[in-house]
Amino acid sequence: MRDVSIIGIGQTPVGEHWDRSLRHLSYNALKAAMIDANIERADALYVGNMLSGEISGQAHLGPLIADFAGLRGIEAVKVEAACASAAAAFRQAYIGVASGLQDIVIALGVEKMTDNVGSQLTAGLASAADADYEVVHGITFVALNALIMQRYIYEYDVTREDFAGFAINAHANGAKNPNAMFQKPISRTDFVKSHMVADPIGLLDASPMADGAAAVVLCPTDLAREFTDNAIRVKGSAVATDSLSVHDRRDPLWLQASEDSAHKAYRQAKVGPTDIDFFELHDAFTIMAALSLEATGFAERGKGTWLARGGEITPEGKIPITTRGGLKARGHPVGATGLYQIVEATQQLRGEAGENQIADARLGMTQNIGGSGATIITHILESLN
Amino acid sequence: MRDVSIIGIGQTPVGEHWDRSLRHLSYNALKAAMIDANIERADALYVGNMLSGEISGQAHLGPLIADFAGLRGIEAVKVEAACASAAAAFRQAYIGVASGLQDIVIALGVEKMTDNVGSQLTAGLASAADADYEVVHGITFVALNALIMQRYIYEYDVTREDFAGFAINAHANGAKNPNAMFQKPISRTDFVKSHMVADPIGLLDASPMADGAAAVVLCPTDLAREFTDNAIRVKGSAVATDSLSVHDRRDPLWLQASEDSAHKAYRQAKVGPTDIDFFELHDAFTIMAALSLEATGFAERGKGTWLARGGEITPEGKIPITTRGGLKARGHPVGATGLYQIVEATQQLRGEAGENQIADARLGMTQNIGGSGATIITHILESLN
Repeated sequence: MRDVSIIGIGQTPVGEHWDRSLRHLSYNALKAAMIDANIERADALYVGNMLSGEISGQAHLGPLIADFAGLRGIEAVKVEAACASAAAAFRQAYIGVASGLQDIVIALGVEKMTDNVGSQLTAGLASAADADYEVVHGITFVALNALIMQRYIYEYDVTREDFAGFAINAHANGAKNPNAMFQKPISRTDFVKSHMVADPIGLLDASPMADGAAAVVLCPTDLAREFTDNAIRVKGSAVATDSLSVHDRRDPLWLQASEDSAHKAYRQAKVGPTDIDFFELHDAFTIMAALSLEATGFAERGKGTWLARGGEITPEGKIPITTRGGLKARGHPVGATGLYQIVEATQQLRGEAGENQIADARLGMTQNIGGSGATIITHILESLN
Repeated sequence: MRDVSIIGIGQTPVGEHWDRSLRHLSYNALKAAMIDANIERADALYVGNMLSGEISGQAHLGPLIADFAGLRGIEAVKVEAACASAAAAFRQAYIGVASGLQDIVIALGVEKMTDNVGSQLTAGLASAADADYEVVHGITFVALNALIMQRYIYEYDVTREDFAGFAINAHANGAKNPNAMFQKPISRTDFVKSHMVADPIGLLDASPMADGAAAVVLCPTDLAREFTDNAIRVKGSAVATDSLSVHDRRDPLWLQASEDSAHKAYRQAKVGPTDIDFFELHDAFTIMAALSLEATGFAERGKGTWLARGGEITPEGKIPITTRGGLKARGHPVGATGLYQIVEATQQLRGEAGENQIADARLGMTQNIGGSGATIITHILESLN
């Protein structure tokens, strides 16, 4: 098994790209990553995407995007794990390089969500949940998360407002990220007064639908220095799963797959939570940020919101999260999000995160969640410099 | 890189399974493969599927199926490459084992096509083609293949009837396969008189829509003997791609990705077409059978139908194809087909193909095609006994 490193990154701004199709967004991110890595060819392309079939009537993205990017003929395939599709594509790219079968591999995440009518997108997103046992009852994806949050508030005796810190931090960071969808800080009052979407989830608890694409180039660490001076090593990579149905889990307030994948990644990287300098977590809703911090060992059970209240999650805090805006402010183009996280973590570790730069960032963690916790993928990245 | 072998296979009959959902079909095939391999756990599951989002409102099949099959928690992800999704899942399973990251891996292909209204399925299948440059003009997937066949007949001076041998052979073989959708031989007259679907493609040129699931268990060849006496080695594995749009290819009558992936697999296996004892090719339409035989080196350019006319493709011929009915008679549950091919090839190599058994089968080849040739995946399998 070979050691694997990231040698190139690319992304489009996240937003409503009415002027760019799925293939154009993909091209922009992929080409930027290839230029950054100083490569002209690749052995394989893994595309993470959730909804292109439902929203754009387009399956078969592997060869479509390879061809459009001038890579006609190479091995290319799509990987889908709901909102964790991009980290799943990265994981397959990592395995491809680790195996010795592929040397230069591109992982791309892309989602085009705004070309549709609302109900089609709502149904598409709900397909991340269990169609036969959850969605059949008419529940939407945000309503499912609202039930979890309601239970959390009841069990752990916290308030809606205790989640404010997650959104405030995300927007403060997004305001400094030129690729973020929302570049405006929000106040506690904005959070409290925000429209209710599905009680207790307000508009400022929820990440926005968006278009976007992000890509990275991977190669064996031994080869990385031929391409770049600032390679970032993949020190840990793990996937764990759980039941799709929330009601079917032993504890609806515990992300078992988050704990499992994080601990696998910690073991592989030989580190623990205290070694991690920053954590790009999956704040699709503020409740998910709290649950992730608990399951990965950064907070005790039921005390995830304490970190938000205490400021430990800000860039100057003990464990900075969503350092470039997270899903909440950078935006959540679902099948691309996992690679935005990895691109942003790479920027931090290279010291290229601009106004969002975390001081002395050496070890970063990313965690991408599919559905309400059924697929959770953790990566630990390390600066080689 | 580790050598990889197949230690278990499972399949459901192909047909219209009104009584079984996506997850039940998956469970049936997966459980059969686990029992056949004598395993109770696995490290990872790769699911090949094309249309579950569009037809069943269900994405996120990896954890859904892992959980339903009693494998909650394991690494599980869906892979999509249109009609080549199942071979793509097998390919990722192969890479996972080869890498050393995963020991016991299951590849599953599943498709549930009959739970839908016709136009939804027609649109779903068309998403394998280029939505912006082909489908936008109103073309269906069968019409696209009809254009290719029309051109073939014009360029190479053959007739519609010259393709009859492909369908007759497939149905003759399917009649002996208890898992085939159609178990009735057809005559040349049946073929000639069959209803026209899209000129020149008649009903008996085209494979049927169907439900089904097929699965295999893979592990390192070094470990295989611990589980079984009849392990089948993966001697060659390769993916190649091409443009989605047929009009964008240098030659619409040449499956470049078929040639490329077959030649990569030949090189890896250190064999050539004359060494192959049988070939499970992708006869979604009879024209595709002809083009595949040419691109893989079994027939000269423009002479694929000669093999059908001469009987070389029958079980007693020089290069038996679609030995258990192929897509035409076994049926074509799109995202499962590639694994039906691999399961059937494994049966042949184990000597377990019943009335379809090819004498002295030692080396088998499978080729799964996505779209009208944009993804083509070739595997070469070898009996270790």
